[in-house]
Amino acid sequence: MSKEDPKYKSALQEQDGIEPPKVLSDVSAKSIKAKRQKQPSITDLVNGITNGDITALSRAITLVESTNPNHNKKANEVITACLPYANKSVRIGITGVPGVGKSTFIEAFGSHLTDLGKKIAVLAVDPSSTLSKGSILGDKTRMEDLVKNQNAFIRPSPSGNSLGGVARKTRETIILCEAAGFDTIMIETVGVGQSETAVHSMVDFFLLLKLAGAGDELQGIKRGIIEMADAIVINKADGDNLRAAKSAKVEFNRALHLYPEKDSGWSPKVSLCSALKQTGIAEVWELITEYLNTTKANNYFEHNRHNQNKFWLLQTIEERLKSNFYNSEKIKKELENQLALVEAGKTTPFVAAEYLLSL
Amino acid sequence: MSKEDPKYKSALQEQDGIEPPKVLSDVSAKSIKAKRQKQPSITDLVNGITNGDITALSRAITLVESTNPNHNKKANEVITACLPYANKSVRIGITGVPGVGKSTFIEAFGSHLTDLGKKIAVLAVDPSSTLSKGSILGDKTRMEDLVKNQNAFIRPSPSGNSLGGVARKTRETIILCEAAGFDTIMIETVGVGQSETAVHSMVDFFLLLKLAGAGDELQGIKRGIIEMADAIVINKADGDNLRAAKSAKVEFNRALHLYPEKDSGWSPKVSLCSALKQTGIAEVWELITEYLNTTKANNYFEHNRHNQNKFWLLQTIEERLKSNFYNSEKIKKELENQLALVEAGKTTPFVAAEYLLSL
Repeated sequence: MSKEDPKYKSALQEQDGIEPPKVLSDVSAKSIKAKRQKQPSITDLVNGITNGDITALSRAITLVESTNPNHNKKANEVITACLPYANKSVRIGITGVPGVGKSTFIEAFGSHLTDLGKKIAVLAVDPSSTLSKGSILGDKTRMEDLVKNQNAFIRPSPSGNSLGGVARKTRETIILCEAAGFDTIMIETVGVGQSETAVHSMVDFFLLLKLAGAGDELQGIKRGIIEMADAIVINKADGDNLRAAKSAKVEFNRALHLYPEKDSGWSPKVSLCSALKQTGIAEVWELITEYLNTTKANNYFEHNRHNQNKFWLLQTIEERLKSNFYNSEKIKKELENQLALVEAGKTTPFVAAEYLLSL
Repeated sequence: MSKEDPKYKSALQEQDGIEPPKVLSDVSAKSIKAKRQKQPSITDLVNGITNGDITALSRAITLVESTNPNHNKKANEVITACLPYANKSVRIGITGVPGVGKSTFIEAFGSHLTDLGKKIAVLAVDPSSTLSKGSILGDKTRMEDLVKNQNAFIRPSPSGNSLGGVARKTRETIILCEAAGFDTIMIETVGVGQSETAVHSMVDFFLLLKLAGAGDELQGIKRGIIEMADAIVINKADGDNLRAAKSAKVEFNRALHLYPEKDSGWSPKVSLCSALKQTGIAEVWELITEYLNTTKANNYFEHNRHNQNKFWLLQTIEERLKSNFYNSEKIKKELENQLALVEAGKTTPFVAAEYLLSL
């Protein structure tokens, strides 16, 4: 290093007598190079996933969840290559308010399925969650047995600010899990907000977990959750609770009958279980099997998956059209002006909209 | 007229010996010219409207409802000029399933208001209606007294294929009616589909008409109508029906209490009336007056109108962004291709959406 070098002329760059620590930098360089070499290629990832390699699967999901556009490009290629191996599964949405026992239910239900020889993946959609805040499924200790189970794969909700983003990541993760040989995908969501609708539009079967006597039947009707459910499973139907659970079953059955027949040709069922005592769990799977037989026989199963694909395609377009428009600097500025003019009664919302669209 | 004229060379244009009927054509020409001269200018229309001239008002509304872009341009100018005279009114949305007695109620309620010295305009939002099919309010004979009433103006639902278009026309008509001095605007809609949500977002007060014992309480909860209502008025509460109506009032009051408090600070009320026997009608107006006092005192009234303007601005932009995108010939063609690729499992909905957006 020479002081005569023109790049050292600035006083801010005065490094006279300072040598970079040679040894350390060699070590760092080697380590970085080694890491770079370890980054698997698209082919490696696809081969790994389709061979059921969990490390490859996890890495591909990390690419899907990344906010780096290069990662997303790579993820898209991996997913596209995995598509022919996907779709051979059943996707089950599970919702219920906090406290209903979703984790315990998934633990019991998932173990039952792996006992039957199935490979299960448990995903989640919870846009409010971040790693720091602690999300549903984030605390894997709530599913002790399942975590240790070789035939179960658990992945917490991807973080993200928009439901659209979180839902997209989960939907792409489903494809990767299916390509990795998981034949039963469970997608958990919390019983609040729009995330239930998003999960409903990515699953074959939608299961609503309830408690007896929680008095939130009206909430379920109001928010359209009961309308979406293919089954209502009343959890904690044990001990002193059993009687109340049985009478809740009658009530929910009555409520379900007030809805018109579903396009699926399936009449939603109500059943009881105790995830803790592990009773009624096999019945839930029997019920889902019956649903699959019905909807595969009448072609609703395929029809529904096609409609869901179309929905996600159009949904993605519409979200992007909006975000492209509103994120333009020109529009951001003029939207405020036009809103002010509308509020001052100087223009109508429709004329203002036309003006903004003409920019 | 000469046969030598080149434009008469075609046999199809053989007019040898035929003279146009001179007298008739002169008469027609004069009539057409006269009509053209009668087409009022923007200033004429605005002056007419703000002087309460019903002919000018009707003509301006016809411009609003026209599908001719030149008419719409003229309409926009008239509306903008009318804006300073508008907004001084109360806008009341009225909904209820067919058979609940909406026309009879509006007849009785409207007559009561004009007796109080008010000037009322009755509009409608019904995207399913066309002039030929017969719409709500289309059959004015159902409002015999109101039609003859000097202080009432009744306009059927504009026709249109999209709710967005119909709602926009009605919303612009509100402004014109207000500028013409109508201080109470009622907007009727049928109790089906999304039109109720559209009407709710253009009014100050939303009134749900009900019948006792119709058993559609759950429907109202499901579709979110009860949640939107500022008052539930149980009609046909007379004779043998009175007892059932009173018990329905108790039930609806109970249902309303299950909802969280509204932003307006107003607790929705349930009242009984018989539009036919003209009982309970004054009470409905008292209730609305109480609502106006509450929401003007706590500034919700103004706040809500501002929010509605913002909603319509954004709504119009988003509808147009979508229609511009999907109506492009390029997209129409490629959307089909991409959907086919998605269904064949060759691409994902998200990659397909990105491709379409990049075109």
